[in-house]
Amino acid sequence: MLSLVDLRARIEAGTLTPEGAVRLSQEAILARDPVVRAVVCTDAAPAVTDRGPLAGIAVGVKDIIDTAAMPTQMGSPIYAGWQPRADAAIVMRLKGLGAVALAKTTTSPFAGIDPTGTTNPHDPGHTPGGSSAGSAVAVGAGMLPLALGTQTGGSVIRPASFCGCAAIKPSFRLLPTVGVKTFSWALDTLGLFGAGVRDVAHALALIAGRPAIELGGVSPGTPRIGLARQDFADAPEPAAQAALDRARQAAERAGAVVVDCALPPELAAAFHVHATIQDFEARQALAWEYADHRGALPERLGRQLDDAQGLDAAAYDEARRRAHRARRVLKTLFSDLDALLTFSAPGPAPRTLASTGDARFNRLWTLMGVPCVNVPVPGDGLPVGVQVIARFGDDGRALAVAAMIEGALQR
Amino acid sequence: MLSLVDLRARIEAGTLTPEGAVRLSQEAILARDPVVRAVVCTDAAPAVTDRGPLAGIAVGVKDIIDTAAMPTQMGSPIYAGWQPRADAAIVMRLKGLGAVALAKTTTSPFAGIDPTGTTNPHDPGHTPGGSSAGSAVAVGAGMLPLALGTQTGGSVIRPASFCGCAAIKPSFRLLPTVGVKTFSWALDTLGLFGAGVRDVAHALALIAGRPAIELGGVSPGTPRIGLARQDFADAPEPAAQAALDRARQAAERAGAVVVDCALPPELAAAFHVHATIQDFEARQALAWEYADHRGALPERLGRQLDDAQGLDAAAYDEARRRAHRARRVLKTLFSDLDALLTFSAPGPAPRTLASTGDARFNRLWTLMGVPCVNVPVPGDGLPVGVQVIARFGDDGRALAVAAMIEGALQR
Repeated sequence: MLSLVDLRARIEAGTLTPEGAVRLSQEAILARDPVVRAVVCTDAAPAVTDRGPLAGIAVGVKDIIDTAAMPTQMGSPIYAGWQPRADAAIVMRLKGLGAVALAKTTTSPFAGIDPTGTTNPHDPGHTPGGSSAGSAVAVGAGMLPLALGTQTGGSVIRPASFCGCAAIKPSFRLLPTVGVKTFSWALDTLGLFGAGVRDVAHALALIAGRPAIELGGVSPGTPRIGLARQDFADAPEPAAQAALDRARQAAERAGAVVVDCALPPELAAAFHVHATIQDFEARQALAWEYADHRGALPERLGRQLDDAQGLDAAAYDEARRRAHRARRVLKTLFSDLDALLTFSAPGPAPRTLASTGDARFNRLWTLMGVPCVNVPVPGDGLPVGVQVIARFGDDGRALAVAAMIEGALQR
Repeated sequence: MLSLVDLRARIEAGTLTPEGAVRLSQEAILARDPVVRAVVCTDAAPAVTDRGPLAGIAVGVKDIIDTAAMPTQMGSPIYAGWQPRADAAIVMRLKGLGAVALAKTTTSPFAGIDPTGTTNPHDPGHTPGGSSAGSAVAVGAGMLPLALGTQTGGSVIRPASFCGCAAIKPSFRLLPTVGVKTFSWALDTLGLFGAGVRDVAHALALIAGRPAIELGGVSPGTPRIGLARQDFADAPEPAAQAALDRARQAAERAGAVVVDCALPPELAAAFHVHATIQDFEARQALAWEYADHRGALPERLGRQLDDAQGLDAAAYDEARRRAHRARRVLKTLFSDLDALLTFSAPGPAPRTLASTGDARFNRLWTLMGVPCVNVPVPGDGLPVGVQVIARFGDDGRALAVAAMIEGALQR
């Protein structure tokens, strides 16, 4: 993989130019994308600057995020060739930091659950996950050092786990979603993919304009970590359980105190209403597409929106109240813990291109709005990651604990 | 003015067809718009249906709200002729209810504070307010029975007060902002203009899919109302004070208990950080326009964004914390009150077209996310309204108390 931090170190040392760094990505795309098919299009003549802390960093932009220089097609024929007027806020921020929006990356149609044509970089017969398939693959396959995804259920953490890269789904609305196609406004969260935890931490601190995120905000000595199994989401596969065990042992070796943590019933209750909130909002957010282009919607999203027509406002309002109560309970839970450690996905990437896998270990945390980091766990076979979660607004702590576990896993 | 409820009653009684109702609006636009200049463009061949509870209702859509059949120009040459792909969620909802999106209405550029060319329907030498100028005027001048605006500071309640119509800025995110140009995602709120309180109540109940909104949710008998002067926002003009006094007396005549209510200091603190939140977000939301089209931005918005470049994330985060604390304090305040009654604007519409007036009596309530209703107060001279506010999520109560005061004022 291309490490953002390494590339920047080489650029600052004068052993690599920003143009040279971007060329590494362009060449890697030419070499790898014919198999993985993660890139929708590239900017043929990107404006590379040598100014800014992300100069030379080529970024992949999920194709539901508006770009003024490239089409934004939402993974759907309904938006074939669609050219937005403006760059999304997050794209402007990256450009302002010197980065280059080099490629649009594949997305499940409208960031839903239907698959893309993208393949897993570790085995082309397996899904890379979704909906941010192209961004996870672009980083996991070593084509780009940074890519933007979005998560409404588990569309950042799950594909990162499947593709063996690091990722963060930051606190809700830490990164601006202006210019990002909406699926569910209470849930949609921009996230970052990078080669390792330090790469996404460095990128997030710069993009969010909050240097403390990178400095950790936690004494790395003896964090107290709650191990959460999310029983309400059913059991994981053995490979995911093994990865969690290894991550726990690594954390303990590094000096963390890991305690088993039964999640209170309010959190299970919130888990079960995620779909109500998501689908009630998706029905409104995609109302034009549903009313005027139902026949062009993919199979699963079409059925999902069919079913969503029957949801009523009272069910949605009750679901929102449950989520609100769960956020309060979770805040209390974190008064005694630095982080939670749990599964990123039920197992490695399923051997199919017809499904993007299951987001059941991610949904609750998206609804809670708390920062989540995927830490790849080295091992045999296809990648499996674990998920580190911190309280709302404490992205630096989630990243610090994740980096600690990542480091201990590699020793 | 054209009353939505009256038009619908005539249509249901068979004395008016939906086509006939829409024609009333088309004819009124031809007659009045040359002076008030509230309409950017109209749908020349609107699809009028006779099905749905809003059939025959012609709606004005503020020109920062996406429409698939008409351009969406943001009040700015940067978007001259810009044609979005899809209708905004709120437009689709209105169409689903049978309404017709007949006209795009003028907006201050990007819903900022620079004026439009629109004139006050009661005196063309006076501002109609902003930023939802066209929508307030379209209803106030009797051209349309319903119009959509947005409020980030005071862009719904203030122009309604200046133009003599009713309006509601509902609870934050009760109405979906998908497809609405963002200024500040924590503040931007869709609102409705109508001839009277019952008109906006009927429309909101239908659009939000929450029938209880119209039924009031409050025993109309003896509501307890707090009279709030918002001293932190400086004194109003005599005409606004007189309107508030008259509204208080009307409420008491109708059986309400009105008590003077000093707002706690946490609310004043939140009032003072509104601009920090708004401008920090606007800098990101309008980053493309600022970076690539600074010369085409209007004077005040350009300067506002110049200044916003210096805001840092720490100030924003602290402002958000203050707003959060204030919301909790306000919730407690409402445990003893059904509603607050305060100024809608500092006075009648200023005699100028170079300013849209002052939002200082509106900003706090936008930041708090609570429902606000403008009630026109009959009197001599230019219109002046008063503002009725209820707790978050209790839009029905705000409307019920507003309707009670409106009725008592007319007796």
